[in-house]
Amino acid sequence: MLSYNLGSGENRNWVIAETEFNSSLLGKCETIMALGNGYMGVRSSTEESYVKQTRNLFVAGTFNRFDQTEPSELPNTADVTALEINLNGEQFSLDKGTIHRYYRYLHLKTGELVRVVDWESPKKERFELTFRRFISLKNLHLIGMRVDIKPLSEKANIQVTSGINGQMTNSGAQHFHEGEKRIFDKKFLQLIQTTTETNIDFVINATHRLKMNHEEIDLSPQMSLGRRRVDLQYSATVAKDKTYTVEKLSTVHTSRDSQIDSRSYDLEELRKLSLDGIQKARAVGYEQLFEESKSEWLKYWNQVDIQINSENEIDQLAVRFASYHLLIMTPHHDSRFGIGAKGLTGEGYKGHSFWDSEIFILPYFLYTKPEIARSLLEYRYHTIDGARKKAKDNGYDGAMYPWESAFTGEEETPLWAAVNILTGKATKVWSGIIEQHITADIAFAVWNYYTATQDVDFMNKYGSEILFETATFWASRVEWDDGKEQYIITDVVGPDEYKEHVDNNAFTNYLAHWTIQTAIRHYDECKTNRKNVFERLNDKLSLEEKYKKWKQAVDHIYLPVPRESDNLIPQDDTYLSKPIIDITKYKTDSAVQTILQDFSREQVIDMQVSKQADVVMLLYLLGDRFSDYVKKVNLDYYESRTIHDSSLSMAVHSIVAANVGDVKDAYEYFTKASLIDLGENMESSDAGVHAASLGGIWKAVVFGFAGIKLTSEVLMIKPNLPEQWNSITIPIYWRGDRLTVELTLNSIMIRNETGNNPSLPIEFNGTRFSLQDVIELRKVGKGI
Amino acid sequence: MLSYNLGSGENRNWVIAETEFNSSLLGKCETIMALGNGYMGVRSSTEESYVKQTRNLFVAGTFNRFDQTEPSELPNTADVTALEINLNGEQFSLDKGTIHRYYRYLHLKTGELVRVVDWESPKKERFELTFRRFISLKNLHLIGMRVDIKPLSEKANIQVTSGINGQMTNSGAQHFHEGEKRIFDKKFLQLIQTTTETNIDFVINATHRLKMNHEEIDLSPQMSLGRRRVDLQYSATVAKDKTYTVEKLSTVHTSRDSQIDSRSYDLEELRKLSLDGIQKARAVGYEQLFEESKSEWLKYWNQVDIQINSENEIDQLAVRFASYHLLIMTPHHDSRFGIGAKGLTGEGYKGHSFWDSEIFILPYFLYTKPEIARSLLEYRYHTIDGARKKAKDNGYDGAMYPWESAFTGEEETPLWAAVNILTGKATKVWSGIIEQHITADIAFAVWNYYTATQDVDFMNKYGSEILFETATFWASRVEWDDGKEQYIITDVVGPDEYKEHVDNNAFTNYLAHWTIQTAIRHYDECKTNRKNVFERLNDKLSLEEKYKKWKQAVDHIYLPVPRESDNLIPQDDTYLSKPIIDITKYKTDSAVQTILQDFSREQVIDMQVSKQADVVMLLYLLGDRFSDYVKKVNLDYYESRTIHDSSLSMAVHSIVAANVGDVKDAYEYFTKASLIDLGENMESSDAGVHAASLGGIWKAVVFGFAGIKLTSEVLMIKPNLPEQWNSITIPIYWRGDRLTVELTLNSIMIRNETGNNPSLPIEFNGTRFSLQDVIELRKVGKGI
Repeated sequence: MLSYNLGSGENRNWVIAETEFNSSLLGKCETIMALGNGYMGVRSSTEESYVKQTRNLFVAGTFNRFDQTEPSELPNTADVTALEINLNGEQFSLDKGTIHRYYRYLHLKTGELVRVVDWESPKKERFELTFRRFISLKNLHLIGMRVDIKPLSEKANIQVTSGINGQMTNSGAQHFHEGEKRIFDKKFLQLIQTTTETNIDFVINATHRLKMNHEEIDLSPQMSLGRRRVDLQYSATVAKDKTYTVEKLSTVHTSRDSQIDSRSYDLEELRKLSLDGIQKARAVGYEQLFEESKSEWLKYWNQVDIQINSENEIDQLAVRFASYHLLIMTPHHDSRFGIGAKGLTGEGYKGHSFWDSEIFILPYFLYTKPEIARSLLEYRYHTIDGARKKAKDNGYDGAMYPWESAFTGEEETPLWAAVNILTGKATKVWSGIIEQHITADIAFAVWNYYTATQDVDFMNKYGSEILFETATFWASRVEWDDGKEQYIITDVVGPDEYKEHVDNNAFTNYLAHWTIQTAIRHYDECKTNRKNVFERLNDKLSLEEKYKKWKQAVDHIYLPVPRESDNLIPQDDTYLSKPIIDITKYKTDSAVQTILQDFSREQVIDMQVSKQADVVMLLYLLGDRFSDYVKKVNLDYYESRTIHDSSLSMAVHSIVAANVGDVKDAYEYFTKASLIDLGENMESSDAGVHAASLGGIWKAVVFGFAGIKLTSEVLMIKPNLPEQWNSITIPIYWRGDRLTVELTLNSIMIRNETGNNPSLPIEFNGTRFSLQDVIELRKVGKGI
Repeated sequence: MLSYNLGSGENRNWVIAETEFNSSLLGKCETIMALGNGYMGVRSSTEESYVKQTRNLFVAGTFNRFDQTEPSELPNTADVTALEINLNGEQFSLDKGTIHRYYRYLHLKTGELVRVVDWESPKKERFELTFRRFISLKNLHLIGMRVDIKPLSEKANIQVTSGINGQMTNSGAQHFHEGEKRIFDKKFLQLIQTTTETNIDFVINATHRLKMNHEEIDLSPQMSLGRRRVDLQYSATVAKDKTYTVEKLSTVHTSRDSQIDSRSYDLEELRKLSLDGIQKARAVGYEQLFEESKSEWLKYWNQVDIQINSENEIDQLAVRFASYHLLIMTPHHDSRFGIGAKGLTGEGYKGHSFWDSEIFILPYFLYTKPEIARSLLEYRYHTIDGARKKAKDNGYDGAMYPWESAFTGEEETPLWAAVNILTGKATKVWSGIIEQHITADIAFAVWNYYTATQDVDFMNKYGSEILFETATFWASRVEWDDGKEQYIITDVVGPDEYKEHVDNNAFTNYLAHWTIQTAIRHYDECKTNRKNVFERLNDKLSLEEKYKKWKQAVDHIYLPVPRESDNLIPQDDTYLSKPIIDITKYKTDSAVQTILQDFSREQVIDMQVSKQADVVMLLYLLGDRFSDYVKKVNLDYYESRTIHDSSLSMAVHSIVAANVGDVKDAYEYFTKASLIDLGENMESSDAGVHAASLGGIWKAVVFGFAGIKLTSEVLMIKPNLPEQWNSITIPIYWRGDRLTVELTLNSIMIRNETGNNPSLPIEFNGTRFSLQDVIELRKVGKGI
């Protein structure tokens, strides 16, 4: 079983561990214990192989299309993590023999994966094996591995076969040509593979260092060469109780790496650079390389670590687990790439970016490392031409962002899904066509970033253009309704994908309106205060002309307001008039989407049943527009109709519940959100982590329970802590300063850790302070 | 360990069995126990999966090129053989738990694979599982599987997950687009996959029948759909000691099937046809379908089964093993396809046809089922345009057959191998360019076929053209040497690939000369006796003009004759002057090509060391031209310099040794040849059976020990039985009659089983009889 409390003292609640080997949990552990650094991500498959393993190594941004009928996806790069270990003629595998001791853990603080096994082979020979592995946060190209093997019964012949295996596929789709294999100095393995459509070269290197009882030794390996793979085999005789160590260091470089200038790119140079890198790494060795990476992790935790003193220790672990994965999934090194819906931890969603990035993940970085939030928004700027193409292809103006985005920004959602296996009819995939709110979500994130950071440089270069182009899209998208004498938006899917082809989806209408409204405000500001920028964008985008269209639309867009009778905001024109069914069964089922086993998709569309509640999402994003009472009424109503079949759902309900003071419910939702990946559901994470949900865990803590919000003027704090929490400490980066907010059920303390701007304005439960006041309060140890 | 003697009574020596589970032998058993029918071949991977398995399903002739830098290969079709079996929550796997009883055998007589396991799960629950499987020899598209599961401890919940898995690759190379998946009536699974380059559609169907204690039951399955795969899961509760049966029937059809007319091909029709077929098969069920297939196998054995009464029972088994595999590897249903060097049992050699087909395999069919021999030669006719292209591309005339042949007959040997992993230098592959004897080998096989069958129809339609075009090639290939005043052939590789770029390779020169000589003879015959055919071919090939060139060359080709001093035939111009080294070490090593670990390829070229001996091969093929003494001398000489690193080598040495009376040596070579696949070497067959060697086993028995030879006039018999053999019975098909030759150390009896031509001429040890005489001798029970 998985355990979340292993370790004690300073390691307590820093560790995700399993304490016995269970082959049914291979997929789950591969995902939740995955390693990475934003450049690449590697599933934590064990060194020895098992039937149900899924070995994946993904490099951010290296999309390729297997063939024209499939969307782009991140290709599964050659594997370096497998080691075939033969102990006195017996293949090491935990399916066989007897396990006397076993544990495996991912240390979130250091980014190291450790596994210790005391194994007795079927021949009754006993060995202790200790595996360690990390992906460097210092050198983004580096994977470090180490295994220590100690014969406990008698001396043993130990063979380790290790190499680079390019036979990997994405569930059968091979994205690479077979490339060149080399061995330099009988020590350095090199395999080159090139993607079939996008012609991205990957150069993968591997090397080994061997030690006998901690003294370096040199063994001559047997070389073996197979199709798409190259291996070395080292044999050693190891005395009883002596430790034989194999360190394996590997590197991955690609021709899409940020330092590569595509105009002067030369594969030979990349090979040399990478070979030089692996040679240097070998000279340094695992321990030192790991220390360098660990020190980067410690810096990171220093900036992001929320400390929760809770009755339920899992709360602390869950938020650290989220912070860990949010970093390793994010290509913070390169603004050309977005975040995949499964990060870099699995094939699910093919590495594509959804609204998850802007609405669920970006806020985390905005409040802790805003330079990464900026990088993520720049990604949307780099892909804006794809969005313009989509708008044009669909008969609209401006930028219409793709529902699923890869490298070019063109729509990656396939138009047709596979045929229905039962009927043989092709199923149209509607999200790529009518799930249009993504274009408002991105504008929303741009503005939020600007509001919190006041990063004018970003707006000038990227943000303003995104905002204006998305507003232009919406102004061209709205449809005049003669009856209503208003602009309406028909035939969309909101976030609630159990309702297809609806009219006036509240979430979409409000966000569309918000986008145009905000663009107008920003246009006015630019025209007044940033004339050069305005002129440039006006030339490029014909802003003045577009502005007229925005103005014409903005005050006439139909916004479904709370009904007078019951204060309900209709999710769309027909939702509230659909029949209601009892969904308890589906809400309590540990599997998701089980309702589709009892009803067809069409039947579900015609019921008051939601995958996730659009209106609750709206109450969260545009919370200022609605009273607490309206929020409460609508949360109650929609919660009872929501199955939470989307992993994005629970955390949002938690935030809104906390904000209106329903802390008990909020905590229950939070707990469920925490367990989406960490919980007992064995296969739920097989295709990768739920990236948005991880952002949601952090958001529920900071936006929900702590009630923190950065506006353009003030840091607002309006906490509603669950009773299970004695205290919580939250680091926030704001306007050049690192702040620490400490909350208990009846106190607040704020530290300015950097002190650059001593008079930051704070609003606590509606009362304005300057940070200096707050510091004073802290000094006298008095809660507010 | 493998065992070759399981079974008793009528099954004795009909069975290849393993009597305990050993995961190191998975690859070997997958290969040697493979099932097939010439249309398709399936490796006998177990139903449950293991890390080191290689699941392969190949359909003859369906070549595809993964990309332009790789040769065509037979694509690994979607798998239907995997069954995931869950017994009371425990995944069935022999790596776990306790095995109380285990055996697995392939029954060569019936073509059925059977496995019986008494397994105790790690939870101490005991089950008996019986697996059966066959590929129909009656319905070439059909795969039948059946598993009976009996809980021995207490009642159990049994889940079987089964479907069609299109994630398979050829060691990472994916040859198929992802295709459509369907489930009809919740019973019939269908997956369509289309090759990426050649656009061949594959339609794969699967269905299940369930029984509880032999009574048919109906369970509603859970359906699951993955990328490139579709599965059903059946759950049943089974009482203690009751038997739960899952039958799985699958079919494979392709758009390259012989009944498909490519001009009017329609995928929908193929789908319907295949669905109709699987529905009918389901109605019939495993038992009856198996009986239908078995009855075809019995007919086959009736025509081919050699019975050896030997002190070493393995001799009997080996020759049956050969007959079994020779049938399942051969696409006897379709003359557009050749035989792969690994049959249809593995990825090795990519399904390509080499000279193995004509020189090692075709004789088997020529002597037992000559219609198949004809089909194999028609394959070379269908691909003659590829051979003409190769001749033209290389500056020659006529037809220059490819060293490696797939569907088109163009050369499939890559020009460049992967770069040398150590030096980084690209290695040129010479066999596709200079291993030219293949073009004579094919002519030789054509003539042998004609000689034995007198099949004038074949010659008129196909054979004469092949013979003339190959002669034309050789006439254009030979080079005038002013010194010798003869035509010579420089810069070739003979069968002995340890000698590259040699001049006047004896084997090549003799066979080239033979080809031209035979073409001249045949030209004369045609011109005299078959005027119409001659005119047609003369028009097409300008025969009269070519004839002049043949005549000009034929008597002036340099043929290295036995040296006066020592009667040695020089393998090539320089072989006999190269240094000699002690090769004992490499001859006795169970692994092959170990000499290349001590010496570079260039060094080996410069020694008197042969992979296989060209001269011995020549002594076998053109045996009439050399005295027994010359054969003896040369066999002794070259044997001591031959490592037998080619699986083609040993059987040929056995034949020549037997023919010159060295029966003891011949038997030793035969035994070694028998064990190339069947022996203890664990990994030697992982990439597939050694097809040529299997033909060699049969040839060693019939051509070597029995000394049988079909000439144009007479059936010659000149036996040299090993002393270990008490008797041998050999069925031969000749000129419309099925004969049975029974030999003991001191008797011969021949039966004409069909009796169509009672006066067939026989020559026994140089004395001519008519078959009638021989029958008389049998009647009086008198040996000759």
